[in-house]
Amino acid sequence: MASATAGKVITCKAAVAYEAGKALSIEEVEVAPPKANEVRIKITHTALCHTDHYTLSGQDPEGLFPCILGHEAAGIVESVGEGVTDVKPGDHVIPCYQAECKECKYCKSGKTNLCIKVRPATGKGVMLADGQPRFSVKGKPIYHFMGTSTFSEYTVVHDVSVAKINPEAPLDKVCLLGCGIPTGLGAVFNTAKVEAGSTVAVFGLGTVGLAVCEGAKKAGASRIIGVDMNPAKYELAKKFGATEFVNPKDHDKPIQQVLVDLTDGGVDYSFECIGNVKVMRAALEACHRGWGTSVIIGVAGAGQEISTRPFQLVTGRVWKGTAFGGYKSRSDVPKLVEQYLQKEIKVDEYITHNFKLDSINEAFELLEAGKCLRAVIHME
Amino acid sequence: MASATAGKVITCKAAVAYEAGKALSIEEVEVAPPKANEVRIKITHTALCHTDHYTLSGQDPEGLFPCILGHEAAGIVESVGEGVTDVKPGDHVIPCYQAECKECKYCKSGKTNLCIKVRPATGKGVMLADGQPRFSVKGKPIYHFMGTSTFSEYTVVHDVSVAKINPEAPLDKVCLLGCGIPTGLGAVFNTAKVEAGSTVAVFGLGTVGLAVCEGAKKAGASRIIGVDMNPAKYELAKKFGATEFVNPKDHDKPIQQVLVDLTDGGVDYSFECIGNVKVMRAALEACHRGWGTSVIIGVAGAGQEISTRPFQLVTGRVWKGTAFGGYKSRSDVPKLVEQYLQKEIKVDEYITHNFKLDSINEAFELLEAGKCLRAVIHME
Repeated sequence: MASATAGKVITCKAAVAYEAGKALSIEEVEVAPPKANEVRIKITHTALCHTDHYTLSGQDPEGLFPCILGHEAAGIVESVGEGVTDVKPGDHVIPCYQAECKECKYCKSGKTNLCIKVRPATGKGVMLADGQPRFSVKGKPIYHFMGTSTFSEYTVVHDVSVAKINPEAPLDKVCLLGCGIPTGLGAVFNTAKVEAGSTVAVFGLGTVGLAVCEGAKKAGASRIIGVDMNPAKYELAKKFGATEFVNPKDHDKPIQQVLVDLTDGGVDYSFECIGNVKVMRAALEACHRGWGTSVIIGVAGAGQEISTRPFQLVTGRVWKGTAFGGYKSRSDVPKLVEQYLQKEIKVDEYITHNFKLDSINEAFELLEAGKCLRAVIHME
Repeated sequence: MASATAGKVITCKAAVAYEAGKALSIEEVEVAPPKANEVRIKITHTALCHTDHYTLSGQDPEGLFPCILGHEAAGIVESVGEGVTDVKPGDHVIPCYQAECKECKYCKSGKTNLCIKVRPATGKGVMLADGQPRFSVKGKPIYHFMGTSTFSEYTVVHDVSVAKINPEAPLDKVCLLGCGIPTGLGAVFNTAKVEAGSTVAVFGLGTVGLAVCEGAKKAGASRIIGVDMNPAKYELAKKFGATEFVNPKDHDKPIQQVLVDLTDGGVDYSFECIGNVKVMRAALEACHRGWGTSVIIGVAGAGQEISTRPFQLVTGRVWKGTAFGGYKSRSDVPKLVEQYLQKEIKVDEYITHNFKLDSINEAFELLEAGKCLRAVIHME
């Protein structure tokens, strides 16, 4: 099934980030055809994630402008470049910011999902084949973002960054399986490996934190303690599995001490889903002596550092982190889609708002204000 | 076999630490008979370890004076208190600063060796039965240290702190299995779980670091990189398994960068065997993205903190620590003694000096100057 647009530049609508700290600009952009080992995707739906906001805010030292943000999305393959064998035009796909080439040292290690193949290019906002972006506005190049750039009606990604999914899956829902939900679930299953009966603390009850709650519940955790300064989040978090809540504002003691007291020595597993280095420390120190494991999921501001007394580790606590929940994107995202179709994992429940692309700045404002979990942008 | 001294106070020689920063004083001390669940041991040999020196120096905020230091020793049970069933007079034993009660939450967890049963007492330099020490000099109480106090011809320890060993084992050698060697070996086998073919970096080539080298070699590591500022240690370290060496003084780059460059991305496992928080950071950051695991073994100065960018963990490095190498003392120390008798692990090779108790201060000076690995004090 060859597309009528194959091999041609597509001019379409996109939200362009021209400058840090400024609103996105809805523009006509030119999207060049895919080169070797590239895939051009018609994005049907994209959600907004805090990392988009983080880069747009200017805090991300590696943020490049002008660029097209967006990394949690779904769509349909429009055309493919030379050498692409795993997907064809018409396939339903989720673009993945964490690639999986199945060939590099990382992919072959069996120990990590952090494929390195296209990172030299994606880190610079360009494509590997020629070191150039495929986006432009009136001929001026626009950088890619995280190798995905889904705030555009069409995008070009590396073939190692495309997960082919079941065409039965509703794209307006499973677009969420491109980032936040897998990150939280995977932190539980792949990184921490939470066992039945465990005690768990979840710092930050946004989409990732709720996915951690859901994962911990599925893993059979006996206590899932949500920690958030905003009590408005507690009712919702219960639906995802949280069994109790602690508001740091209600206590004079440091939150780690509150949790240690509440759990007879500390939790078995803790998850930091905020990106605050002080909370990362509290999450570690809230863990049980001897075995407590803390997983950092949140992305901290540039240059910020975590610290603790080494005694915390010498007495048996373990400090870890996770990216995309340790899931291998092309192998695992299609399986997560199946789990959703089998009603084994939630997705719909994370979607609080729906917008058209023209209203994307409004969606960002809601996200920034903590007033939404996931806002899905419908491109058409 | 009842001892003639059972039930009576024994007056014997011991090295008493009266004050931080001062030399030990060889004194006649009174050692009270063991109370319920206590064991009085005739110490035949004790080695010196850096932790003894650390506390004597005054850096240990929990150091209590006057006390009797020493925690790496071997001896023979002289008498036992009520309720002691696992050892009897005449048994050859190694006193263990890390107890193993087999009953507490920690012992039963299957996840840690950090038994808590007698810690409330040992942390205060006293015995659990009555909150009092068993040592005195002319009626004035002298505190216990680490629940062992082996710089004395006789000591009293909790029964959960006594490992019964094969009487065929030479006590002047296996006394070393009370601390440093198990700590290094266990960090490799129990905490890091080094696999065959791994790349390993060992920071600090003292007794613990050499035991890490030995363990890594047994585990089949392909490269074992010793890191030490003193090149005089390299020749010896080769005998324990180190395959190459890096002297931080030879490089302008940070040592973590040197190691990353040397190993195509970082080591699979690193071990900090010094107690320096800056080296702990370097050891973590010398680990490979995606899976590198760093184990803190050294004891840092009071109040000192480790720090790094959380990105180090989010991209897959793991930060851990270990105490007594994760070995369960009463269960595992007798097995290590058997391994030594079967020539599966080295012990003799760590002993560089032998002294009488009267010369213990001389031994401390050598240890402090880095001029000895293990000095064994022969009590008779």
